[in-house]
Amino acid sequence: MPSIEGEWNYNIAWDGIETKGSFICVSNTGNNHGKVVTDGFGFRYADGADYIPVGTTCYAWVHQTEALIAQTLETFASAPFNKVRMCVFPKHMPYNSNDPELYPFHKDENGKWDVAKPDFKFWTQFESYISKLKDLGVEADLILFHPYDRRGFSSFTMEECSVYLDYCINRLSAFRNIWWSLANEYDLISAGTNEDWDIFGSKLKSEDIYGHLISIHNFVHMYPKKDWMTHVSAQNNDCRRVKQWRNAYQLPVIMDEFGYEGDIESNWGNLSAFELVNRAWVAVASGGFVTHGETFDRKDEILWWAKGGKLHGESPERFAFLKSLLYEVGQLDPPVRKMPVNTDPNANPSGEQGESDIANSLRVIMALPEDERNQFMLRVTPLIVRNPNYMLQYLERTCPSRTTVRLPENGLYRIEAIDVWEMTRTAVEKECCGNISIRLHGRK
Amino acid sequence: MPSIEGEWNYNIAWDGIETKGSFICVSNTGNNHGKVVTDGFGFRYADGADYIPVGTTCYAWVHQTEALIAQTLETFASAPFNKVRMCVFPKHMPYNSNDPELYPFHKDENGKWDVAKPDFKFWTQFESYISKLKDLGVEADLILFHPYDRRGFSSFTMEECSVYLDYCINRLSAFRNIWWSLANEYDLISAGTNEDWDIFGSKLKSEDIYGHLISIHNFVHMYPKKDWMTHVSAQNNDCRRVKQWRNAYQLPVIMDEFGYEGDIESNWGNLSAFELVNRAWVAVASGGFVTHGETFDRKDEILWWAKGGKLHGESPERFAFLKSLLYEVGQLDPPVRKMPVNTDPNANPSGEQGESDIANSLRVIMALPEDERNQFMLRVTPLIVRNPNYMLQYLERTCPSRTTVRLPENGLYRIEAIDVWEMTRTAVEKECCGNISIRLHGRK
Repeated sequence: MPSIEGEWNYNIAWDGIETKGSFICVSNTGNNHGKVVTDGFGFRYADGADYIPVGTTCYAWVHQTEALIAQTLETFASAPFNKVRMCVFPKHMPYNSNDPELYPFHKDENGKWDVAKPDFKFWTQFESYISKLKDLGVEADLILFHPYDRRGFSSFTMEECSVYLDYCINRLSAFRNIWWSLANEYDLISAGTNEDWDIFGSKLKSEDIYGHLISIHNFVHMYPKKDWMTHVSAQNNDCRRVKQWRNAYQLPVIMDEFGYEGDIESNWGNLSAFELVNRAWVAVASGGFVTHGETFDRKDEILWWAKGGKLHGESPERFAFLKSLLYEVGQLDPPVRKMPVNTDPNANPSGEQGESDIANSLRVIMALPEDERNQFMLRVTPLIVRNPNYMLQYLERTCPSRTTVRLPENGLYRIEAIDVWEMTRTAVEKECCGNISIRLHGRK
Repeated sequence: MPSIEGEWNYNIAWDGIETKGSFICVSNTGNNHGKVVTDGFGFRYADGADYIPVGTTCYAWVHQTEALIAQTLETFASAPFNKVRMCVFPKHMPYNSNDPELYPFHKDENGKWDVAKPDFKFWTQFESYISKLKDLGVEADLILFHPYDRRGFSSFTMEECSVYLDYCINRLSAFRNIWWSLANEYDLISAGTNEDWDIFGSKLKSEDIYGHLISIHNFVHMYPKKDWMTHVSAQNNDCRRVKQWRNAYQLPVIMDEFGYEGDIESNWGNLSAFELVNRAWVAVASGGFVTHGETFDRKDEILWWAKGGKLHGESPERFAFLKSLLYEVGQLDPPVRKMPVNTDPNANPSGEQGESDIANSLRVIMALPEDERNQFMLRVTPLIVRNPNYMLQYLERTCPSRTTVRLPENGLYRIEAIDVWEMTRTAVEKECCGNISIRLHGRK
């Protein structure tokens, strides 16, 4: 990832190997827009081209058979996803008991991983997969540590971790399509303290001279804000909390895990496609970004979420529909309001109550203990995001037969009713402004 | 409501009117089981017969035309509901602008309500409606005060309130099928302080010698526990909170308002039938009771929730299905657990993780700040209620293709898969015990 056009020279010296050479750096061409960077509460490519993450989850796809890996890449070629959460280390968990052919390191004579002895075969293959994702326009959100382990990768010493991270940084940071996800469910890795993660995050920030995105992903406890953190990578079923984290972190928020479409026994993996799509829209209409996952119980134990393969669910085409709308309208942010939206007389959903009733409700809500008030407001605030040209209001699972859209008085607006399940966009009004009541079909 | 068989004499002296007489009190007959009382975290009739509340909401049905009132009573005759939330005072709100023919009081020469001058015509009619509900087996959950008012009923002085309450107690408490609901959305009645409500609650408890049930219903702030309160009458969209309130109040909890089936613009009145039914099962599977409501936008403005009439939705038959199951199995309570259910190794939903993984998750969850931990646990704890002979687990909107049922090792149990929407109960296992994995259809 040289940043200046012209001739570049390199010298590599490592463990007795020495080599040098040179290459010509040319301007970006074709679909190469450089790495992804943050831009306010959103993202873009380094050259300014649009990038809006719509991710998926294939934790251990690179640790599967060649045939399965090929199938996964084929799926990516036609799937809507432009980011994938994937692990460097193999995974141990239900549906993930198979051993990979290659591991990142060789073992020492005592059968212990020797982090100073990378298995080049593994890394060469790993690079080839990242490269293929790059050609498909998919960002590799690389999970450097994770807790699902029976092989010892989650219990390295600090020094071993450091040697491993050095290798990742030196070897992988030249790829424009990688992001560093310091850990998956960091709070389940009992060997790591919050201070350890801070040390590793700082190391990534200072040693990756290309400045790839860095995040850390939680199980139940959000990792506090640090200056190495470029965005929030959250796990939570309540996608309305995006707004809260935008405010607290002042960073872009990706809902990287909010349950998966599927039918396995664990509650995180048996959402209907309808509910997964609903949660995705809640996240987007709260000013966040989303990551898909799929966990259908199968005899062959090939679940997309872990091993890749094929997609079987009904949600991917709905993520494609969502993505296409997002690329069309651009970055959307919640309006900044000091007062709760739904207690603003202008935002009164009934449109019939008097101002004194609204003021009265507001008085009662504002008198609640702070925690309770925040919980209440989090649940009832209308989901509205916008930019200067576009406003999106998501009605979630409600079924109104009409709703009031509140547009500026100056300007002419087109109103579309979006059916997020049927994937239709129907013009309801073509040239309008101000407060306008529109009919909806009133049924999900 | 005399409580001893034999001859009773009465003397009535009021405002210059004096009358006396006698009657014979006989034993209860037919469907007369006496008033409803609480029994632990549930209810029963005074004579011990089963009573499990499955309510509905018709706030102002007695303030409508005779024809509409007749239709409402006809609907009650075939509907599953055995309790109705209804107001003494007429209602002012969207869809509720019509004036009733009669009011509870006459006005004085200044056009102000004179609470010392009840309109007997109103009360005679009102009694006749309570009586008709009684014949239909429906408890009248009488809302004594409410905030939806343009006529001055919500801004009485303390003395006026007291005179009015005396009249209600003296006149209505002889009906076995009345409950006192001190107020609807008490926290929206700006004229009343928490102390005022306490005074009125105490008055009802001390002056109603028959001891009818007493509750108070909130908008957003739960009224604190008082010794006059016989049960919790809650408004909240999150029916999982039943458990929290059972613990805090040590009283039966009725979710009297958790949204209505309908399509009006306000969010509290545009749930799909599916979601209303879902919330009802969440409440029941948390150890609570439920109240239905229906708000479909109609040109004639006759919405069941306010005016009665006919039911138009798809949820009532599902409430009937739920009610029939509840009467079959009897009172259900959540198991008392000190540890969160889902971190108990025996309740591990994946059935495949090792105990150390479970212990690790538990460690992380228990280390959360208390508020965050409670929020988390509230959201993820499996919904299980039971009695010595029956266990109900509600899977909400999850779609597992199999689930593990954990039964005692001794005994023989029958397992049924209940489809709360299709209203089917399918035997899955006929004689089983211990932990048993069953197949489900895996799709909502």
